[in-house]
Amino acid sequence: MTLKIALVQTNSLVGNIDFNFNQITEIVMKTRSESPVDLIVFPELVLTGYPPEDLLLRTDFISQVNGILFELAKLAPEIAIVIGFPEIFKGKLYNSAAVLLSGDVLTIYRKQKLPNYGVFDEQRYFSAGTDSCVFELKGQYIGIGICEDTWHSKIVEATKKAGAEILVTLNASPFHSGKAQKRESIISKNASAAQLPIVYVNMVGGQDELVFDGASFVMNKNGEVVLRAQEFVEEVRIIEFDGSEPIPAYCAPSYTPLSSDYAALVCGTRDYVYKNGFKGAILGLSGGIDSALVLAIAVDALGAENVEVVSLPSRYTQAMSNDDAKEQAYILGVTYHCIPIEPAVNAFTAMLEDTFANMQSDTTEENIQARCRGVVLMAMSNKQGKLLLTTGNKSEMSVGYATLYGDMAGGFAPIKDVPKLLVYALAKYRNQLSPVIPERVITRPPSAELAPNQCDADSLPPYEILDPILQRYIEEDQSSQQIIDAGFDKQAVARAISLVDRSEYKRRQSAPGIRISVRAFGRDRRYPITSGYRGT
Amino acid sequence: MTLKIALVQTNSLVGNIDFNFNQITEIVMKTRSESPVDLIVFPELVLTGYPPEDLLLRTDFISQVNGILFELAKLAPEIAIVIGFPEIFKGKLYNSAAVLLSGDVLTIYRKQKLPNYGVFDEQRYFSAGTDSCVFELKGQYIGIGICEDTWHSKIVEATKKAGAEILVTLNASPFHSGKAQKRESIISKNASAAQLPIVYVNMVGGQDELVFDGASFVMNKNGEVVLRAQEFVEEVRIIEFDGSEPIPAYCAPSYTPLSSDYAALVCGTRDYVYKNGFKGAILGLSGGIDSALVLAIAVDALGAENVEVVSLPSRYTQAMSNDDAKEQAYILGVTYHCIPIEPAVNAFTAMLEDTFANMQSDTTEENIQARCRGVVLMAMSNKQGKLLLTTGNKSEMSVGYATLYGDMAGGFAPIKDVPKLLVYALAKYRNQLSPVIPERVITRPPSAELAPNQCDADSLPPYEILDPILQRYIEEDQSSQQIIDAGFDKQAVARAISLVDRSEYKRRQSAPGIRISVRAFGRDRRYPITSGYRGT
Repeated sequence: MTLKIALVQTNSLVGNIDFNFNQITEIVMKTRSESPVDLIVFPELVLTGYPPEDLLLRTDFISQVNGILFELAKLAPEIAIVIGFPEIFKGKLYNSAAVLLSGDVLTIYRKQKLPNYGVFDEQRYFSAGTDSCVFELKGQYIGIGICEDTWHSKIVEATKKAGAEILVTLNASPFHSGKAQKRESIISKNASAAQLPIVYVNMVGGQDELVFDGASFVMNKNGEVVLRAQEFVEEVRIIEFDGSEPIPAYCAPSYTPLSSDYAALVCGTRDYVYKNGFKGAILGLSGGIDSALVLAIAVDALGAENVEVVSLPSRYTQAMSNDDAKEQAYILGVTYHCIPIEPAVNAFTAMLEDTFANMQSDTTEENIQARCRGVVLMAMSNKQGKLLLTTGNKSEMSVGYATLYGDMAGGFAPIKDVPKLLVYALAKYRNQLSPVIPERVITRPPSAELAPNQCDADSLPPYEILDPILQRYIEEDQSSQQIIDAGFDKQAVARAISLVDRSEYKRRQSAPGIRISVRAFGRDRRYPITSGYRGT
Repeated sequence: MTLKIALVQTNSLVGNIDFNFNQITEIVMKTRSESPVDLIVFPELVLTGYPPEDLLLRTDFISQVNGILFELAKLAPEIAIVIGFPEIFKGKLYNSAAVLLSGDVLTIYRKQKLPNYGVFDEQRYFSAGTDSCVFELKGQYIGIGICEDTWHSKIVEATKKAGAEILVTLNASPFHSGKAQKRESIISKNASAAQLPIVYVNMVGGQDELVFDGASFVMNKNGEVVLRAQEFVEEVRIIEFDGSEPIPAYCAPSYTPLSSDYAALVCGTRDYVYKNGFKGAILGLSGGIDSALVLAIAVDALGAENVEVVSLPSRYTQAMSNDDAKEQAYILGVTYHCIPIEPAVNAFTAMLEDTFANMQSDTTEENIQARCRGVVLMAMSNKQGKLLLTTGNKSEMSVGYATLYGDMAGGFAPIKDVPKLLVYALAKYRNQLSPVIPERVITRPPSAELAPNQCDADSLPPYEILDPILQRYIEEDQSSQQIIDAGFDKQAVARAISLVDRSEYKRRQSAPGIRISVRAFGRDRRYPITSGYRGT
């Protein structure tokens, strides 16, 4: 007896139950007509998108789900459909999966392990289920798990004990660098320990700071991958079981860290722009590496015809910066503007002349330049309905090397979680596919160009030293002493950590960006602004 | 046999364990020498401040607490001290209270009910305790509870059953309007149900979006208040027990909603400015009611000598706005500047002339004006190290009637959680104490003055209608149908809700402000930016 299961890695729109319902309907009908299966598995909370956050506290939102399950059950009564949804049961809210069959709800599973760490807040909303759920389909017994459940060997084993011969798991498992490998490795252990094949279905697409990579898979009872879907692509993959033995099928190649990271940035940017209804994107192109990479990402995400760049030179901008910016715009075929900011800078300088009389020049004057650029870019964004992308990287966000309302102005920050060294690596990776960033942009030393002959290395440790210090402090919670003991210079460590500690107020007003590391700024790292903690 | 207990409502600095340790030491030594007691009770997590957020994930931070308890125990060995701290026990983290006596830790209580809703994320960090804790002192049996615990009658009763004759509870219970009354009412029920007197000690002071009101109290076993500390004041109050019967002592008067709200705003502003090391504050004074109220709050919080205002007229600013701004600055005795923004506006207009050729005027031009003000104010803030206060109210924040990087520029937003009608009420309340806001500022119709003869009422429903709609939608999670059924105009409801839904991206980049309602924007209301949910 064989059993055919469709893994649907779909891209939901958070909050829009009608949209998600229609999308699910379309996929079910298409699968039914093109390649009939016995069971279709959708991701966790596919009806609401993930994470719906405080929309889950709204009765009007939750009650929209009621009834929809029965409509879905009637779509293709001969096919079993497993679907994730928020369920009100005896006055409590659960993160549940319904099995729809023969026009009805056959059974419901309630997620047992509710993650409440990192980017997850599930205990804010959900009560935990307590029981395994196994149902019969064509003589096979199928158990259900939801995301975090399947990371716990005890729950996988309990499902097996409850009679499951195959485990299907619904996921909204967000990407970070190396996540797909980590996922496969943990699930593989649990599959082989319980001697239970696992069908793992993950969501795909960007949602604010999160991006879901898909990369769904099927493992046999020895934990070997026998099917692997592509990453960052909406697709339906079908696995056939002979009894409880899956028949090997399509396997997307394993991903390389750089290709996955880059794909994550493109996917996250595309979905943020389009899901929020923008007509395209605009960005300031300085001739530096950060905006060059963001432009490459934007063009890959949106197409050159939907991207516009503005060069905003000041008296401190070197000619080669302008040349390189213009060259990249030309290579990529995007609309290019050049608007020198001197008139506005001069106006502000004159307006503040009396107030600032007898006061020394300091970063105030640098910030005025950055903010004049912000005003121009925002005006162009407002006028055309194009989203302003801000181009700061994670190293800058960490140490506060950015101007609030200046270069930080913008609605989305594609490389906010990309440290400077990774910015270079991704630029080189992208240029290997096709040349999109002028070589000199990659090789020249980085500078903010806000003062004469300014260079990042004047006020910051070199990125080869800074980036690993930041990673240890921010992502690994190491103390300054631990970092020094690992061989880093005491003063460089003190300087870096002190800058991180006192820049929280800037990060709190920064645009959201795509998480690709194990700890991004934003919902993932929640620090007080008012804080007497000093890491040094 | 009598027992004297000191209730210490103290203002901790989040993250600075040394500072908090020193403050505790000082209070213990002072209390010991001035009015000896048997027991001193400090608030929840007094050693770290509340909420320490992700600092709790740092081993270096938690390990600082080790050892400090024993130092504190040695301060005054003859006095029992109950103190809140984060405790590592068998590899798990607890929100605990230690009883220090005779130079040692006598016993430890672990919080059982960990709030994970609203502004609280305690399940992100802590494991839950499971046991009551009762200790003997001078023949009396004293039980311990921590904050949320005491809101649960079962836990109060369990502590009584474990032998407690008096319950002391350590709290970090943040303020919202009416919270003190709510607290007393619930604790009173639990006290009288269990026939157990309760000593309730709450934190005081501002911490980012939260402000703690103190308002500690003691109830007898019938749930009657026999001692009440002041709100928003650091103080030590002493209660004497004759057996388990408290002897009535000082009772601060019950608070009025307006006086509490105003005091919360002053306290929150003062603590944000000083705890973050600013020399004072600066703000743009428009002649409108919002900035007038923020100025009054700032002067009450920081003193006139530490507050500076800037009038930033454009061609659309009416003469009476300038006059009123100047008059209020004069009344309050703050430094006043007037910097017309026309030169900068003209510069940007000219710079964008070609790009915007043949495009219609729209809000882009209004935003440019607001952003020119933002640039000037931020320059003055940067140059002097004074915090820029932004002056938007909750009604504006709700509907997005504010310009990102323009009037939204600033480090702190004192009235961000104050709806427009409450802005007026608070202005009138403050003027009753002493005249600080010119009468015309309160009586004239509100306008953003970004276009000729502009008036809020042109683009928004009147605040008498808008504010209650917003309250129902944002604070009470009502659906549009529920609001319409309550008698509100369908179109006004649709317009208000649609504006709220699509302004999340602005709020996400807004400055933190003080929570005074049951649901403030920020950590209290967590909505996705990318969202297909439409409340209408």
